[in-house]
Amino acid sequence: MPAVDAAGEFETIQKLLRPLAHPDYARGLADDVAVLPSRPGFDLVLTKDAIVEGVHFLPDDPLDTVAQKLLRANLSDLASKGAEPFGYLLACHWSPRCGWPEREAFAEGLATDQAAFGVQLLGGDTVLTPGPASFSATLLGWLPKGEAVSRGGARPGDAVYVTGTIGDGWLGLQAAQGRLSLEPERVEALAERYRRPVPRVVFGRAVRGLVTAMMDVSDGLVGDLGHVARASGAAITLDLELTPRSAAAQAWLESRTDPEAALERLVTGGDDYELVLTVSPRDEAAVKREADRLHLRLTRIGEVQAGAGVSARYLGQALTLSRTGWTHD
Amino acid sequence: MPAVDAAGEFETIQKLLRPLAHPDYARGLADDVAVLPSRPGFDLVLTKDAIVEGVHFLPDDPLDTVAQKLLRANLSDLASKGAEPFGYLLACHWSPRCGWPEREAFAEGLATDQAAFGVQLLGGDTVLTPGPASFSATLLGWLPKGEAVSRGGARPGDAVYVTGTIGDGWLGLQAAQGRLSLEPERVEALAERYRRPVPRVVFGRAVRGLVTAMMDVSDGLVGDLGHVARASGAAITLDLELTPRSAAAQAWLESRTDPEAALERLVTGGDDYELVLTVSPRDEAAVKREADRLHLRLTRIGEVQAGAGVSARYLGQALTLSRTGWTHD
Repeated sequence: MPAVDAAGEFETIQKLLRPLAHPDYARGLADDVAVLPSRPGFDLVLTKDAIVEGVHFLPDDPLDTVAQKLLRANLSDLASKGAEPFGYLLACHWSPRCGWPEREAFAEGLATDQAAFGVQLLGGDTVLTPGPASFSATLLGWLPKGEAVSRGGARPGDAVYVTGTIGDGWLGLQAAQGRLSLEPERVEALAERYRRPVPRVVFGRAVRGLVTAMMDVSDGLVGDLGHVARASGAAITLDLELTPRSAAAQAWLESRTDPEAALERLVTGGDDYELVLTVSPRDEAAVKREADRLHLRLTRIGEVQAGAGVSARYLGQALTLSRTGWTHD
Repeated sequence: MPAVDAAGEFETIQKLLRPLAHPDYARGLADDVAVLPSRPGFDLVLTKDAIVEGVHFLPDDPLDTVAQKLLRANLSDLASKGAEPFGYLLACHWSPRCGWPEREAFAEGLATDQAAFGVQLLGGDTVLTPGPASFSATLLGWLPKGEAVSRGGARPGDAVYVTGTIGDGWLGLQAAQGRLSLEPERVEALAERYRRPVPRVVFGRAVRGLVTAMMDVSDGLVGDLGHVARASGAAITLDLELTPRSAAAQAWLESRTDPEAALERLVTGGDDYELVLTVSPRDEAAVKREADRLHLRLTRIGEVQAGAGVSARYLGQALTLSRTGWTHD
């Protein structure tokens, strides 16, 4: 079917993508395949996420940040396993919006994050779509054999921790859409968090042998804790007021008339890309030392108990989980 | 951003995709990652292709055939390396057209080809798009260490062969669009070839150690021979009238007033997914034996010479290559 790529598929690959190719495995992006030698003693971890304009990023988001968000969402999945990322395959479904300058920006975003996270392009495809742009990436990482962290290892008595701050992804979406009345620098900080989350790759690797379960928080803290509880056959209790908040999120919270309802929004919104982890009392000090060493905020937000599901307390008072939040008992 | 998946992402994964998951590596599709043990002595080959509705498949193509075309286009890339496929990651960008019955059909197409080609689902993502549906897959295969077939090994004196028939993909697109005046069974056969090409995976593996270069014909025979010539630093001469044609393509050819121009269309159209290979005289008999053993048509269509580029002869007369076909000298 006729689909003229005005910006040029060939030029896109030659000028923008080839400079990003892995020197050993990508075969110069000239062979339609990547060839990866085996690494005895290591497992290969693979994850694949897709993002769509108007769904996972905004139509006016700069394309360098879109490329970065794509890589980072995938890197966050590898981080939750404790894996060491090294490469990725990429599919670009360019829309008419994606001319040469936009593709240059996209490639610049890739280059920035390749350097930041130690990954290189292995291959992929670039195609045209008449609809909204979308992108997918398959990220690859190494793990010492058998050491992939599960989300099913949480045991009663474990403490529940989370990295960084929670709720900025959801608030950041409101900020990027101009729907947040806060000081401009707060709005900008939150929008930046939405566009460019920070996957906790180094911390994930550092605590790989110390945690009982770990996963990344991408669909909302409560929902993702629910995955851990279910996979572990245990209950998790969350102390709502302990949930770590950025300065901007705290400012937003203080502007709300119902702080409890506002907290519920923060812990059920998506796009945080933090790690939530469960730790036995024996290893808590060691996990905290790793966070200190990396200057990473790490907050105890609850505990694992016998039972099932996620329950919450707010200032010591039990709440009952509704479908998207809580109601009082 | 609000994007309601009426058919249900959770149900899609649980009911349609989980039954397709690799029993050992996919972690039940419950962990956002696949974990692949190392296989010492083998290289891992990876390829990723994307297809878009209205560009690579037709808006009214049944989704089972779309799933199969996606896998087969990727399998064809692995076939050209001589690799043994075993798994794939999948991104589904569902459009509003993709309700539950369409997703069921898509999963059925996957299941059919998993059985036919020995691959299993490793992971991926399903997202919604307001635009046309698109899909991408990352296919994985094994190769004995260092044995990936290159497209750069053709040497003067080698013969050029192609599997199957050429031109049916391009004709099949016209057929599927109702733009071909042939008998109904011819039209149906060609449309089927467009929707469900047959990647030559078994043959590719069988001749891995016998060919000097190999690649799959996806962008048109002439253009893909050009890739082989360029990568090999050699010239390729193609005897146009030798190009193998299906009975339906032959019927179409005989209906044209200018057979040479018609032949040019067949050898520059895309979507064939056959293998083109170069073979030294010493190994020609062995390669033919493998094709015979597999009951696969294999046709000598030209030869490798010193020089550069692709040139063509028609009934012994030299033609000069124009951008999309040939003109007479």
